[in-house]
Amino acid sequence: MVTVQESGLGSYDHEDPAFALHVGGKLETRSTVPLRDRDDLSLAYTPGVARVCSAIAEHPELVHELTWKSKVVAVVTDGSAVLGLGDIGPAASLPVMEGKAVLFKEFAGVDAVPICLDTNDVSEIVETVVRIAPGFGGINLEDISAPRCFEIERQLRERLDIPVFHDDQHGTAVVVLAALRNAARLTGRGLGDLSVVVSGAGAAGVAVTTILREAGIGDITVADRKGVLHDGRGDLTAVKRRLASVTNDTGMTGSLADALRGADVFIGVSGGVVAEDAVAAMADEAIVFALANPNPEIHPDVARRHARVVATGRSDYPNQINNVLAFPGIFRGALDVGATDVTEDMKLAAAEAIAAVVGDDLADDYVVPSPFDERVAPAVAEAVSAAARRDGVVRR
Amino acid sequence: MVTVQESGLGSYDHEDPAFALHVGGKLETRSTVPLRDRDDLSLAYTPGVARVCSAIAEHPELVHELTWKSKVVAVVTDGSAVLGLGDIGPAASLPVMEGKAVLFKEFAGVDAVPICLDTNDVSEIVETVVRIAPGFGGINLEDISAPRCFEIERQLRERLDIPVFHDDQHGTAVVVLAALRNAARLTGRGLGDLSVVVSGAGAAGVAVTTILREAGIGDITVADRKGVLHDGRGDLTAVKRRLASVTNDTGMTGSLADALRGADVFIGVSGGVVAEDAVAAMADEAIVFALANPNPEIHPDVARRHARVVATGRSDYPNQINNVLAFPGIFRGALDVGATDVTEDMKLAAAEAIAAVVGDDLADDYVVPSPFDERVAPAVAEAVSAAARRDGVVRR
Repeated sequence: MVTVQESGLGSYDHEDPAFALHVGGKLETRSTVPLRDRDDLSLAYTPGVARVCSAIAEHPELVHELTWKSKVVAVVTDGSAVLGLGDIGPAASLPVMEGKAVLFKEFAGVDAVPICLDTNDVSEIVETVVRIAPGFGGINLEDISAPRCFEIERQLRERLDIPVFHDDQHGTAVVVLAALRNAARLTGRGLGDLSVVVSGAGAAGVAVTTILREAGIGDITVADRKGVLHDGRGDLTAVKRRLASVTNDTGMTGSLADALRGADVFIGVSGGVVAEDAVAAMADEAIVFALANPNPEIHPDVARRHARVVATGRSDYPNQINNVLAFPGIFRGALDVGATDVTEDMKLAAAEAIAAVVGDDLADDYVVPSPFDERVAPAVAEAVSAAARRDGVVRR
Repeated sequence: MVTVQESGLGSYDHEDPAFALHVGGKLETRSTVPLRDRDDLSLAYTPGVARVCSAIAEHPELVHELTWKSKVVAVVTDGSAVLGLGDIGPAASLPVMEGKAVLFKEFAGVDAVPICLDTNDVSEIVETVVRIAPGFGGINLEDISAPRCFEIERQLRERLDIPVFHDDQHGTAVVVLAALRNAARLTGRGLGDLSVVVSGAGAAGVAVTTILREAGIGDITVADRKGVLHDGRGDLTAVKRRLASVTNDTGMTGSLADALRGADVFIGVSGGVVAEDAVAAMADEAIVFALANPNPEIHPDVARRHARVVATGRSDYPNQINNVLAFPGIFRGALDVGATDVTEDMKLAAAEAIAAVVGDDLADDYVVPSPFDERVAPAVAEAVSAAARRDGVVRR
C-alpha cells in the first residue's frame, strides 16, 4: 500500500525506499587530518597553513600536491537534460549529481562535489566553471542538453588545464565501444567489418559515432527522429550536418528501419522505438544495443529472437551498458598522472580496458563486466594513465 | 636541522610538519548511503533517483529535505586577503579554505566545500556565487579584501535565500563582542559605559564597530593607519566616511595613541603597532584585544602590565579570539532552521551564547571559552536558531 504523507516541506511517497534513502542527502565532507588539540589546529589551520599557502603562491604546481585539488572532481550540471526527465533545473538535479559524486568515490576513490548551475547560457556556464576551476582537479559535465553541451565542453577543454569530460557523451561512448569490441570478437568479426546504425543524434549519439570512427569503423549510419542523416537533408542543425558529412558514405535516405536492413549493429541512444521487424531484417549474428532508459528501443527479450548479442541500459537484463564502468576509472587514471586533458586515446584505452576485463568469460550474455566488478576501475585507470603519458598530457 | 628537498612538483621544507600534514589535502567527500549491490544502486542512482528528482521539480522546497543542500556550505574566496599573506590568488588560498571546511565539519557537523574563484571582480564573484548557489545551503565568504567584501556580501544577501556570512567580518565581530561582554562583566561595567577604540578600518574593523554599536556601545572611535577617523578627513573611502559618521561623536582628531588616552577598551584588528605608553595611558581596568596575527599590535605580556584583560588571536596566550568559536555554530544554527539570512540578531545571539559558556569561571585570563570547548557550537547553534525564528527568517 502506498501512502502519500505531508512532510514538513512538501509531499512525497514516504513508503518509497528511494525517498527514505535520500532524506538528508547522500554525500558528506570529512577531514582527513586529526583536529584534536591546539597543536593539530596550528598545523591544519593557522599559523601552519600559512607556510603551505606561501609555498603554493611561490610554486603554483604545489597546489596539486599539498591540497585536495588533484583528488577532487566537480560534477557540473545546469539540470537541462536530467536522466529521461528533461530540463528540471539545477536544484531538482542535485540528487543525480550527489549520486554521481557518490559513485566517483565508491568506485574509484575520487572525491567529487555537485555543482548545480542556475543558468542555461553557454557563456555563463563556461565562465562559471573557469572561475571555480582553481579548486578542482577535473570537471565532469553531466546532464547538459545538446547542442549546448558540445560547445561548453569544447570551450572548457580549451581554457582549462585539467580534465574536462562530458559523461553523457563520452562515458556512454566508451562503454558502447567496449561492449562492441567484445561482441565483434564473440561473433568472429573485426570492428572494421561492421556496419553500424546509430539511432539518436544528441549528446550520446554524436559521441558514440565519434569513438566508433576512431576505433576504425567506417560504415556508420545515424538516424534521428526524422530518419537517416544525409547531406541532402535541409533540416539539420550544425552538429547533425557535421555528423551526416562523416557518416552514411553511400548517401542512404529513408527511415531507421530502412537503415537497419542488413546492418550488423544497432545502437539506440534515442529514446525512440524500433519494431521487431526491423531487427529481424538485420544481418545474421546481429548486435543490438537498445540503451534508452528505462524503456529500451526494443524489449531485450524480443530483440534476442533475432540478434546474437543484446545489451541495454538496465540492470535487470544482461549486458548493462552502464557509464559507471567508465567515468570513475577515467578520472582516477587522469588525476593519478595529473592529466591536463582527456584525449581520444585515453577514451579508446578505457574502452579496451573495460572490454579486456571480460576476457575468456566472453559470452552472448556477457560482453561487458558488471558495474560491481572491482577489477574494472583500476584497469581503466591504469590504461588511461598510460595513454595520457603516451599523449604527453601529464604533469607527473 | 631543516632541509629543503625537491619534490616531484616543486620545493618545500619536507621536515616542516605542516607540509607533511598537507600532502594530498585535508578534505574528502564520502557517501552516507550504502552502495553494495544493484539494489542499492537502483535507489541511490537510476532509476530510483529519478523519482526524487521529479518530486523536487514539483515541490522545490523538498531540495532542503532530500539532498545535502541544507547540510553543506560553500567556503568562497578569491584569495585576495588570505591570512596575513595578502592577495596570493585562489589556488594558493585553497589550504586555508580546506582548513575552514574541516573546522566546519569537526566543530559543528556542517559539511563544507572550498570554492576558490579565479576572479577579483565584484560582479563576477557575485554572479558566480549566485549561479552555484542551488547546490549549497549557505555561503561563507572568506579572505576577500575590503572594500569589495562589503559589496559582495550585500549583493549576495539580497539575491540569495540562503545564509551569506563573511567570516572575516562577522565571525571576528561576534567573538570580540562575546569577549567584551565578559570583560565588562568582570570589571563591573555595562557595555554601554565603555569607551572603545578600534584600530583598523578594514573588513574586521567595520564589522566589529557595527556589532558593538548594535550591542549598545555608543562611544566608539576608529583609527586607520593615518589616525582617527573623523568627518573632517578628506582622504577617506566611502566605507570609512560612513564609519566616521557613526563613530567619534566628539569629533576627535589625532593619532591612535591620542584616542587611547583614557579609553576603556582597545580593539586592534589592523596589523599595526601600539606602544606601551599608549596602553599605559588608557583608563584603569583597561581591556586590550590585540588581535593581529601572528604579531599582536602589542605583546600580551607588555599589555598585561597596564590592562586588566588582554586577549589576542594567538593560541599560545590566554583569551584567544578565534573565529572558530562562532562560524561553525552560527551556520549549524542557521541550517538547522532553514534560515534564509543571517540577521544582526542572530550574530548578537551568537555572541551572547559564546559569552555565557564561560559562566562562573570568568577570570582575567578566561573571558572566552577555548576553541575546543565542546559546549560552544551547540550553544551558539541553539541561540542562532532561536534568533532566526524570532526574526522570522526560517523555513522550518
